[in-house]
Amino acid sequence: MLTLFYALNTCSLASHIALEDSGAAYDAKRLNFADNDQRKSEYLKINPKGRVPALVTDQGILTETPAILVYIAQSFPKANLAPLNDPFRLGQIQSFNSYLCSTVHPAHAHRMRGYRWSDDEVAQESMKKKVPQNVGDCFDLIEREYFKGPWVMGADYTIADPYLFTIARWLEADSVDPKRFPKVLDHRNRMAERPAVKKVLARETA
Amino acid sequence: MLTLFYALNTCSLASHIALEDSGAAYDAKRLNFADNDQRKSEYLKINPKGRVPALVTDQGILTETPAILVYIAQSFPKANLAPLNDPFRLGQIQSFNSYLCSTVHPAHAHRMRGYRWSDDEVAQESMKKKVPQNVGDCFDLIEREYFKGPWVMGADYTIADPYLFTIARWLEADSVDPKRFPKVLDHRNRMAERPAVKKVLARETA
Repeated sequence: MLTLFYALNTCSLASHIALEDSGAAYDAKRLNFADNDQRKSEYLKINPKGRVPALVTDQGILTETPAILVYIAQSFPKANLAPLNDPFRLGQIQSFNSYLCSTVHPAHAHRMRGYRWSDDEVAQESMKKKVPQNVGDCFDLIEREYFKGPWVMGADYTIADPYLFTIARWLEADSVDPKRFPKVLDHRNRMAERPAVKKVLARETA
Repeated sequence: MLTLFYALNTCSLASHIALEDSGAAYDAKRLNFADNDQRKSEYLKINPKGRVPALVTDQGILTETPAILVYIAQSFPKANLAPLNDPFRLGQIQSFNSYLCSTVHPAHAHRMRGYRWSDDEVAQESMKKKVPQNVGDCFDLIEREYFKGPWVMGADYTIADPYLFTIARWLEADSVDPKRFPKVLDHRNRMAERPAVKKVLARETA
């Protein structure tokens, strides 16, 4: 049995959708960031980083979205969520997901969490100002260079799709107009219509 | 034939070492960041992000360290660089490597590359000031929670080892005393004695 710890409006949505896609039996437990659940000692035993997602498995606990996504794809191969035995194609998915976690997510995080990188409130404000430019540049690159269509990696839906969907949902709040990226926007709309995504979003917001 | 594009004192060292570990036939091409090679149109055709590493393969180009590392492990399985068929153990390696790319590397990058996240030079200075604390916190967590020993993942050397080694080499420049992390420091010393690492470092600095 798997248990996913998630929080609303965070990157844990990607793992949540992939679990639903996989057909796995799983439980999903919500943390309330407004109550600082992620910093409570009970949760720090599960994830000492104090972040989401965390996936509790029978063998131990996994954290970090790209790791959890490949774990789900590999544990439930019938769901065909990644070309696991093709090193190059798997590498392309991993490259895409690594870019999301190492560059796009931090670009976004400087809007709400600038305190991580500076104690100076004026500096934090100046970081906020640059977020629309940085997030916009990242999505320009995705739209122009990396999105193959109709899914991120081309004909086949993969674990790159729920992760892009998750981060693309933050564009408006980051003051970036999604209409600049027609392929990403169309993908976001089609993702939102998938029954697994509807089910997960209904559960997260219930 | 594989070609790795790398630059001195960057995270591309991890992929360079893993290639050497793998026994692959490969070529390594150095970019000179002081000359802004990574922003020249010739290189932007290889990696539109203008970053290293980039690995040119017969099937196409891969970027992002965690993706390249799994690609190398999977393409050269005889080198035993990752437990590829064990979803949980592979997940742990990926979790570790994702943490390095999404949290530890950005924590470090705010020292030299604050201009990415703020146009204000005073703000950039304030980010610099917080780097020792942030990088130190990351390595505290690695030392306490994630480093199993003697290698990152325990008894077996894996693709997590060259990546930790690469980032741990930046500690002194980030004004963090490596003696705070005896396990990481011992690992760094043992890594430096490996013939593959000596060979790669000699090539990079030649």
